Formats: sequence, structure tokens, C-alpha cells
Amino acid sequence: MGIIGDTRDNALLTDLYELTMAAGYFQHGVNHTATFELFVRALPPNRSYLIVAGVEQVLTYLSRLRFHEEEIRFLQQHPIFRHVPPAFFDYLRTFRFRGEVWGIPEGNLVFAEEPILRVTAPVIEAQIVETFLLSMINFQTLIATKASRVVWAAGKDGKRREVADFGSRRAHGPEAGVLAARASYIGGCTSTSNTYAGMFYQIPISGTMAHSWVMSFNKEEEAFRAFHQSFPEATILLIDTYDTEAGAHLAVQIGPHIRGVRIDSGNAWAMSRKVRAILDRAGLTHVKIVVSGDLNEYLIQDLVDRGAPIDFFGVGTEMVTSKDAPALGGVYKLVEQEEGEKRRYRAKFSVEKATYPGKKQVFRFLDGEGRYVKDLIARENEVPGRGAIPLLVPLMKGGEQLAPSPSLPEIQQKARDSLSRLPEVYRRLDNPRPYPVYKSQALEALFQQVQQEQRAFLKER
Amino acid sequence: MGIIGDTRDNALLTDLYELTMAAGYFQHGVNHTATFELFVRALPPNRSYLIVAGVEQVLTYLSRLRFHEEEIRFLQQHPIFRHVPPAFFDYLRTFRFRGEVWGIPEGNLVFAEEPILRVTAPVIEAQIVETFLLSMINFQTLIATKASRVVWAAGKDGKRREVADFGSRRAHGPEAGVLAARASYIGGCTSTSNTYAGMFYQIPISGTMAHSWVMSFNKEEEAFRAFHQSFPEATILLIDTYDTEAGAHLAVQIGPHIRGVRIDSGNAWAMSRKVRAILDRAGLTHVKIVVSGDLNEYLIQDLVDRGAPIDFFGVGTEMVTSKDAPALGGVYKLVEQEEGEKRRYRAKFSVEKATYPGKKQVFRFLDGEGRYVKDLIARENEVPGRGAIPLLVPLMKGGEQLAPSPSLPEIQQKARDSLSRLPEVYRRLDNPRPYPVYKSQALEALFQQVQQEQRAFLKER
Repeated sequence: MGIIGDTRDNALLTDLYELTMAAGYFQHGVNHTATFELFVRALPPNRSYLIVAGVEQVLTYLSRLRFHEEEIRFLQQHPIFRHVPPAFFDYLRTFRFRGEVWGIPEGNLVFAEEPILRVTAPVIEAQIVETFLLSMINFQTLIATKASRVVWAAGKDGKRREVADFGSRRAHGPEAGVLAARASYIGGCTSTSNTYAGMFYQIPISGTMAHSWVMSFNKEEEAFRAFHQSFPEATILLIDTYDTEAGAHLAVQIGPHIRGVRIDSGNAWAMSRKVRAILDRAGLTHVKIVVSGDLNEYLIQDLVDRGAPIDFFGVGTEMVTSKDAPALGGVYKLVEQEEGEKRRYRAKFSVEKATYPGKKQVFRFLDGEGRYVKDLIARENEVPGRGAIPLLVPLMKGGEQLAPSPSLPEIQQKARDSLSRLPEVYRRLDNPRPYPVYKSQALEALFQQVQQEQRAFLKER
Repeated sequence: MGIIGDTRDNALLTDLYELTMAAGYFQHGVNHTATFELFVRALPPNRSYLIVAGVEQVLTYLSRLRFHEEEIRFLQQHPIFRHVPPAFFDYLRTFRFRGEVWGIPEGNLVFAEEPILRVTAPVIEAQIVETFLLSMINFQTLIATKASRVVWAAGKDGKRREVADFGSRRAHGPEAGVLAARASYIGGCTSTSNTYAGMFYQIPISGTMAHSWVMSFNKEEEAFRAFHQSFPEATILLIDTYDTEAGAHLAVQIGPHIRGVRIDSGNAWAMSRKVRAILDRAGLTHVKIVVSGDLNEYLIQDLVDRGAPIDFFGVGTEMVTSKDAPALGGVYKLVEQEEGEKRRYRAKFSVEKATYPGKKQVFRFLDGEGRYVKDLIARENEVPGRGAIPLLVPLMKGGEQLAPSPSLPEIQQKARDSLSRLPEVYRRLDNPRPYPVYKSQALEALFQQVQQEQRAFLKER
């Protein structure tokens, strides 16, 4: 778990072209200051907002980034680098990220085209980190967002129902399971089954038992009693191994101190009602019903709308892979260069993939009750008037993190608060209205100016 | 990159319930030998076969698995484990996986319900490893399979066109990018942009340049010349930053030693034809055309069908997330227990989620030309007749790996060979016929027998 637990082998976690470009810049003495912005061009299908996540890992990565001798040797001996002067590899030996980073703190909402991170550094430093920054922000933001939808569905009638991440086994590898646990906690989950995430991120851990536990004993009752004896205060019995209703009756016999029962198959609506009735008739009204098995926000919304007596949802595959929209297309684009006093703005003007030039700030406008009204993407130093909150804040200067990262509970609270400020019409699962995001006149003017300069330049050649 | 590069912190990369069940088994003296099988109940949408991948990482994990003091302390101090006797934590201190593993080697094809791995070990050992085994096999198998479809599309007319994995930035975290590089190489990709995968797995690495490189110079030509000087034998010029056709003309001016040009936007079919014509007219018939940008097997199939003169596809997001089917639903099910001389078969009989009891073997039948005809899922020791090849082989005994893992090129070759033996009708992208997989009479008889025993047992209570 290098990128989480230690610092080894980070520098090569990047696309080859970042390193060949670095060598090329080095060899040609190109080392002006460059600014790149990381943003999402368009929201994925079924998403009307994104929750920023992954910034803490990005800052840790940038702080610790260095090339180990083994990595430098690999590059130097690779035929692709044959003509690169040895001085470049010496440069890598002392390479550190010493740039400046602005970003939108984790737990905030963002929308399409809004810069989540803005990196200003000597071009080699800014370039090499692209791949890691993208994969970390893309993935955690994707999962925090998906989780927030699931959690919203679970509580849409105002009642408190917990959602736990049970997805590690279907995540894209073991590390993805840990990162998904973190991101889904930010999105509002109250616990994870991932024990490593429990230790490393202090996320509350939860779990029940597998069918194999029940089947490992001669009788279901024996399996239930044995578990209750080992975990008297944390007993959640899986009751659907053989016959769910019979399992519920057995659970009643185990006694009033069990905390819950889990149903992992069958019709969750009908079965939860039957099981609730069995528990209630025995006076076990405090015993929770946990449901798991291929759940997503739509199925949970339907269960809640139909009044299923479920207290706790264990959500796996669909949440940790963001199954209906499994990739976030974040990009990392050069927007500005400084060479001495000279400033050059950079942009792309193709119809499908236009990017706006220059360093930017995002301002959010709130109404009198603190609800989000609209966003404005502006030039870095614009002051768009009272009540507009700038979202990008300085995170790193000279390669040093400016303040400790907020705690995970703080980030989760920030996400909860942010979501509560986004009017329902922009966040509902079905046909949400697009949240209004504008660009400032100054930014549009810069876009026009750079476009004209580029046209003139292209005609020239 | 723990699971890839070192051994730290592996033991907690598991669901909490594996560890609570372990404590429960320990406390109640339950430690019979259990056999679990890992398989996929049903193929994902748009998939007619799977390519096994991830076995090497599973065997490394099982060989090295141990609990570190920090992890044991975390568990011991956690309120959930409050009533677990200290002897359990002492047990964890010397815990090793000492079981037996059978499996289908990487690069082989498998179909629904066929065991990919079969683990026989004391129940605690067999149980604790579930989460890691699933996440590793699920993810790598998913990506190797997806990649094989992309590679097939790229070469469907019999011409050799390379496919490279360019997807790290959209993978589910940095480690997923490395694992996806490995899996997509198994699926037939010839290279990856992931430099770490290049070092650690010796996968050929490839890359070109970013738009930011071109924009970092005052003139496109200057950018092209600088790169060519640094990488004279590995120059692939990105020509679409400003105007693709003008970029192609510029590439011609750079000279005949460039290896290729890359097009990352616009209509790939039309533009590749225009660019090919420009290159050819200048005598640069040997210069390759690389195309990238939101490609998948269907788009590539269409480009190839329509005769687009493309030599090399760089595929990212869609391949490393298996975007149209981003999760593989592998499960790990208890099928058999041995207590002394006594053998108990375990199965589930629910309509949606039935599992077959007992240790199994998969036999593949080939015709006279070596093509796959059908598979038979049978009991472990059945001998179904001549020409049937048993797919599961012993991989580990007493916790020791029985033979070194095959090299990645060997695995890639195995996959290529296996795919060539699967008749087109079962592997084409559009409406493939389901490959025939049967269950043996002996296996069906065991299923019936266990079901009857279970019914009798349930009536009893």
C-alpha cells in the first residue's frame, strides 16, 4: 500500500511521456513556470454534482515525491532514454516538487469545468505529477459522489438509515478497496468493512458474518450462538442461509441482546417486512434489519419510498466501482506560463475540447439562507462582489503543505453541509436540473484574446 | 504499492467479518479443513468468455501473508474484539497460510460457474484470504478480458495493429493503473504508458507527448524538433494541438526518422486517411499513425472495418475501467469440509444463487484441430474420457508455491493461443453464441443428494 502507507516507488507511478517530456525540457533548458488546472469537462451520466475527494493523498504524494536509485537506473538503462544526457538523471536524484498548489478542499461540491486543483511549478515538476493527481482525484471524487447518492436515497424520507461500504471484494484491486472506503465515508457512509481502512484512516468498521460461517456449523442455531458468545455486543446474524423467516425465528431465540439481522437475498422489501414483524412480535423492536446484495441508489430509493423497514444498507459492487458511471474524465491542462516577466496564456480551441486560458478561481453565490445559487468561473484575482465565496484556497507553497489536512470526519461533515445547501432540484436522482455555472466576462475576454492571437500565429506559419 | 512491491500491511486488506469469523472459529475450536471455490456466477454483459488473470499476485500474497504487530494491536484494542480471548491474537502472531491451492493458470479462458481457484485449508486460513483473492482475480480478469476484445477488434482483418494501455490516469487509483497495465498486457496489449509497470513487470512501455509539450514552445515546429533531438529513435509527434493536417505537414518537415504521428481528437477515420495521404506523398510510408481518445472495441472495430489507416491504438479509460462492464462478480464459496475422516459437502440452493457442492475440476474438450468444443464441470477426481483437458492444476501445497509463476510474455502467449482455439462464433463482439458448459452426472447427483440431506435437516428443526 505504498501510496497510502509509505513513500516507496511513487515517482514511476506516472505515464512514460511525463518522463520523456521532462527529459526533453531538461535537455532544452525549458524550465519556465507553468500552471496546470485539473478539472472535469463534463459531469458523468446520472451525476449533477461532484464531491471533491483525494486531495489529502495528492498533497502527501507531492510532499514525498522523489526518485529512488532503482527507478533512476531503470530509466537510464532504458533504450528510449539512450540519447538523454546523464545530467538529467542527476537532476532526478535531487528532484523534489517545490511548486504551489491551490485547490478546492475535500468535501466541497464542484461542477463541470471548475478547477479542482491548480498547480504552478517549474514545468517539469508540474508535468511529472499529472498522472498520479488525475488517478487519485478522479477515483476518489467518483466514489465520494456515488456514495453520496446512495446515502441520500437511504435517508430521503428524513429517517436515519446507515450505509456501509461492503465493496472491497469487487473494487479494482486491494488499494482501490481502501481508497473507496475513504471516499465513500466522505460521501456519507458511516462505516466500511475494509479493516485496513479502519486502521489507517480510522474509519469505523462494520461487518456481520458470511454464509460460510453458518454452514460451518452443524446447525444454524449453533452458528448463531457461537457468534453471539464471541461478539455479544456486535452480533448481527445472517439469517438467509437456509430459510429467511425460519432464520428470523432462530434469531429471536438467541435473545434480546443481538444488534441486528442481515438479509442478503430474495425480495428485500417483502422479506424485511416479514422479518420486522417476526422480531416485533417477539418484542425485539430494537433489533436492526441490515440488507445487502447488489444495491444501488435507485433500488434503495425504491425500498425507502415503499416503506421497507430497513435500518442499515450494506452496499458493495455498485458503489465501489460507481457502476453506472465507472470513470471520471478529469483532465490536467496547461493554462498559463511565466517566463521572467512575460506571461503566456494557453488554451485549446477545438469545438469538443476547448479549455479556457489563465489561472482561475471559482466563486459560489449563496442566498440569504446559505443555499447555493450559482457558480462563477473567473480569472484568478477577480472580485465578483459580496456574498461570493472563493472555492480554491492555497494548499501548498514551495512544495510545503500550508496546513494539516482536515480530518476525515471534518471532510464528511463538509460534504454533508455542502449537500444540504444544494437545492433539491439540482441534486435529486431523477432528472435533476443542471446547476448554473457561468464564466466571468474577464475570462471570456481572455479566451477571445488568446484565440485571436493563436489564429494570427497559425496564419503566420 | 504494497501488494506489488512489498509485504507490509497485507493482512488487514480484508473485510472485518473475515477476522471476526476467524476469532469466532478460534474461540470455539472450529478448525476443520474447508474448501472454498472462487468462480463467477454469470458472465458480465457483452462478455462471452473471461481470461484468467491475477493468479501470480494471489500466490505471492498467500506466501507472504502475516499479521504485523501494529495490525494485531489495532484489532486487539478495537471494541468489537473486546470479548475475544488473548490467545487468538497470539495465534495471529504466528499465522501463516499453509493451505493447498488449485487453480486455472493465467491466460486460460474460463466461463461462468467454472472454479478459477480452489482453496483447501484450515477454515480460518481459507476464510481470511477471501477478500484479497476476490479483488485481485476479479479486477485483473475483468481487464485482461476487456483488453482482449479491444486487441481482437484492432486486428480483426488479420493485419497487425498494436494496442497500448494509456489508461493510468482514469484507473481506480495508482495501484489499479499498475494492475491494469499487467492485465491488459495479458489480454494482448503490446505496451503500457505506466512506467512503474514497465519497471516492476518488465512490460514494454510506450508514449508520445502531451499537448502541453507542444504548447510549451513558441512554435509547434520547435516543439517537434526539440523532441526529435532528445528521442531520435522514439519520436511520435502529437499533431492535433492546433490543426491536424498542418501538424502532419510539419511532421514531414521534421524528417524521415520519426516513428509516428498521433491524432487525439476529431474524426479518427477521416483524419487518419488525410494524414496517411500527407505522409505517403512525402515518402514517409513507414511512419506509423497512432490514434487515441475515448476508444473502445466497438469504435476500433468500426475504424478497422472502414479501412482507417491506423497502425497503433492508445486505449485508456474504457479499457482500464472495463467501462461497459466495470465489475466482475466473482464469489468465493464454501463447497466442502473435512473433519477427520468425515466429509461434508456444502452448497446453496436458492434459485438465484445456487452453488454446487464438493471439490471440482473443469475439463475442456478439443476437436481434432485443437479448437475448443465444450467444457465439463465435474467432481474433482472424475475421468471424463480421452481428449478432455483438466484445467485446474495444483499451485500451492502446505502454503508453498509448487512452481515459479510463468513469465508475463508466457501468459500473454497462453491467452493468445487460447483465444485462437475458441471458435469465432463464441468470441465475436456482436451476438456471440454462448460457449457450451455442462455439469457432469456425478456433480448433478451430488447436488441432488446434498439438497435432499439439507431438506431433511431443515424439516427436523
